[in-house]
Amino acid sequence: MSVELTILEMAKAARSASIEMAKCPSIKKNRVLLGIAGKIEKQASYIKEENNKDLSRAKEMGLSNAMIDRLTVSDSTIKSMADGLREVAQLDDPVGSMSKTWIRPNGLQVARMRIPLGVIGIIYESRPNVTVDAAGLCLKAGNAVVLRGGSEALHSNQALAGIIGHALVENGLPEAAVNVVPVRDRAAVNALLKQEEFIDLIIPRGGEGLIRFVVENSKIPVLKHYKGVCHVYVDDSADLFMAEEICFNAKVQRPGVCNAMETMLVHKSVAREFLPAMEKRFVKAGVEIRGCPETCRILPKAINAAEEDWPAEYLDLIIAVKVVEDMGQAIAHMARYGSSHTEAIVTSDYKRARRFIREVDSSVVLVNASTRFNDGAELGLGAEIGISTSKLHAFGPMGVEELTTTKFVVFGDGQIRL
Amino acid sequence: MSVELTILEMAKAARSASIEMAKCPSIKKNRVLLGIAGKIEKQASYIKEENNKDLSRAKEMGLSNAMIDRLTVSDSTIKSMADGLREVAQLDDPVGSMSKTWIRPNGLQVARMRIPLGVIGIIYESRPNVTVDAAGLCLKAGNAVVLRGGSEALHSNQALAGIIGHALVENGLPEAAVNVVPVRDRAAVNALLKQEEFIDLIIPRGGEGLIRFVVENSKIPVLKHYKGVCHVYVDDSADLFMAEEICFNAKVQRPGVCNAMETMLVHKSVAREFLPAMEKRFVKAGVEIRGCPETCRILPKAINAAEEDWPAEYLDLIIAVKVVEDMGQAIAHMARYGSSHTEAIVTSDYKRARRFIREVDSSVVLVNASTRFNDGAELGLGAEIGISTSKLHAFGPMGVEELTTTKFVVFGDGQIRL
Repeated sequence: MSVELTILEMAKAARSASIEMAKCPSIKKNRVLLGIAGKIEKQASYIKEENNKDLSRAKEMGLSNAMIDRLTVSDSTIKSMADGLREVAQLDDPVGSMSKTWIRPNGLQVARMRIPLGVIGIIYESRPNVTVDAAGLCLKAGNAVVLRGGSEALHSNQALAGIIGHALVENGLPEAAVNVVPVRDRAAVNALLKQEEFIDLIIPRGGEGLIRFVVENSKIPVLKHYKGVCHVYVDDSADLFMAEEICFNAKVQRPGVCNAMETMLVHKSVAREFLPAMEKRFVKAGVEIRGCPETCRILPKAINAAEEDWPAEYLDLIIAVKVVEDMGQAIAHMARYGSSHTEAIVTSDYKRARRFIREVDSSVVLVNASTRFNDGAELGLGAEIGISTSKLHAFGPMGVEELTTTKFVVFGDGQIRL
Repeated sequence: MSVELTILEMAKAARSASIEMAKCPSIKKNRVLLGIAGKIEKQASYIKEENNKDLSRAKEMGLSNAMIDRLTVSDSTIKSMADGLREVAQLDDPVGSMSKTWIRPNGLQVARMRIPLGVIGIIYESRPNVTVDAAGLCLKAGNAVVLRGGSEALHSNQALAGIIGHALVENGLPEAAVNVVPVRDRAAVNALLKQEEFIDLIIPRGGEGLIRFVVENSKIPVLKHYKGVCHVYVDDSADLFMAEEICFNAKVQRPGVCNAMETMLVHKSVAREFLPAMEKRFVKAGVEIRGCPETCRILPKAINAAEEDWPAEYLDLIIAVKVVEDMGQAIAHMARYGSSHTEAIVTSDYKRARRFIREVDSSVVLVNASTRFNDGAELGLGAEIGISTSKLHAFGPMGVEELTTTKFVVFGDGQIRL
């Protein structure tokens, strides 16, 4: 069977399965999630055997150590997949809930009811645990899913798909609710992106190259997560000790992730006091500082920032620093160079806190807290499937609810339109 | 200046204006809306003069009477545009509202705040009133907008744009918050669909051809409204007089619109009683009946339905009728041939009402009410910008709130991530 036909058949099967999943009561979905968790633990050695096939091939092909590290399913990967599923089982089921209901003058009762999106396609890179994490969230929300993992993880992903399929069938649900594309051929991705008749949403998870490819080629709506160029603005009214703590945490606690701070903006009135103290802590932690001319005057050891430093996502122990005239200039800088991901202010001024919250156009805007809190679990959504940096449908971390939509339901007593 | 450059400059200007609009308080936005309404009434004769230029050109080019009718700006069009704006001014402003807020264990207060989408592109066909209706809704939601109307309505649309621009400037807002593409060249549409850097959402309003073209060619997310193949299912437990009233209203009250019923499904146990009574009313109203074999046995004068009748959107006094074994068969028929637009059940059975609501996958699902209620104003959303039949971001009628999204706002006291 050609790749195109394989994908078409898979998308069709997923569409049929999605109709069953949409009707499935919470208790049954949770039973499936717990079933998968138990099976993953019981069949850990089988999963690791299959993973070893991927690892040997990866080594033969000379993949980087970092890639091999991400590809490896260890005992702790097994545990975190199982724990993750048990957490998702604990979450409230959004499907069927009506958050809003109102009565029209003619007596019609109208409500918005949450329903699954239908079929979700997920295209991701090497980590095999995404197969389980993504399938779990999609199932909880009553969706069917087509998963296309990295070609280097094919054996691992198929082993996991087999286990998920068993748990579905044991609970009387269609195996096709979770599908893993069984071919390495890259043509599968192109074919997947053309199934607009059967797939409702595509979520790419991976580097910018993958995401751009998907956006350019998809006929299906895409929820995308571009880079995180996150800012902290230290206001002149800030508690400077708090500002130090927040900026240090935002930059250093885990520099390789999208919600780490990349640029620090400091009000000119506090720059002479704040920057030298901050520099000490940064330098001790091995952070390289690239500053604007004013920053470099205050911190003679800082490197001169170039224009390309302002929009840079370093994902590393490097920070760009700029001294600004006022909050307005800070907000304008974020609008120009930021990525709509996460921005924070440290301030003691009520009016400025309100204005910052209102005017900064990012998926998460914080007052007096670290940018590192842009995360589904930290914000209380439970597990997340990604962070959307574009505004349609979802903006910010996407949890189970973002994998649903609403329809209108209307309860009448024979009303007709006049 | 080339068409591409004109559109690029317009999109950029709209993006800058959107930043101003996002900050604009409700009171000022409402003043603009009321200002436009007043100016439209005062400058009615100027608008009609400009409209006459379009009408003369349309007649020269031999456009159909229906097209010319839709293109004409009459006194009642003027009144309805002004009234519409005044209604939109009355609506609640969604921007800045926080519908949900919660506290995390570390004391962070998290909320979701409604914000404008940014820049909305609207591509539509001949009716010039769409220029005003769409601009009004987008402005209310704090967005900037780029409007591309039918080339045959260019003079009318530019006159209206000029009036809107004056009202914006008078209130200290940027004229570029509302832009009308000033060229007839169709290349403008293609250029518009490529401005993904500056435009957040495209809404096409018009026939299926236009919508498909936009979906195929847009790099920007599209909210689309395909056809409405709406069903009413008459259950065996239905109050048959209520069923007659609802089916008659759904088919006959305004057959040319997307929420009119196209197919009626009747439970076999009541078909012999219900169909002849319904036929009498339909025939009196000039409705042609195309039936399944069982329908034609009961109604010998009915025409035999062909396969292509089941997915047909007649938009006319024609109805397809099928006798079904049970509700399950009715729901399966809707899933197969429907367009996810609007479906209704007439029933007295509690369990079936619940199941129909839960299982029918359409943007509006009604119990004991006419399909004609799928409409923003009828459902209580106020004015609508269209009806989405795809699930991402919005499903069903789209009012002001659907022209916004939410961001997360976080209020802390110095929290860092551990």
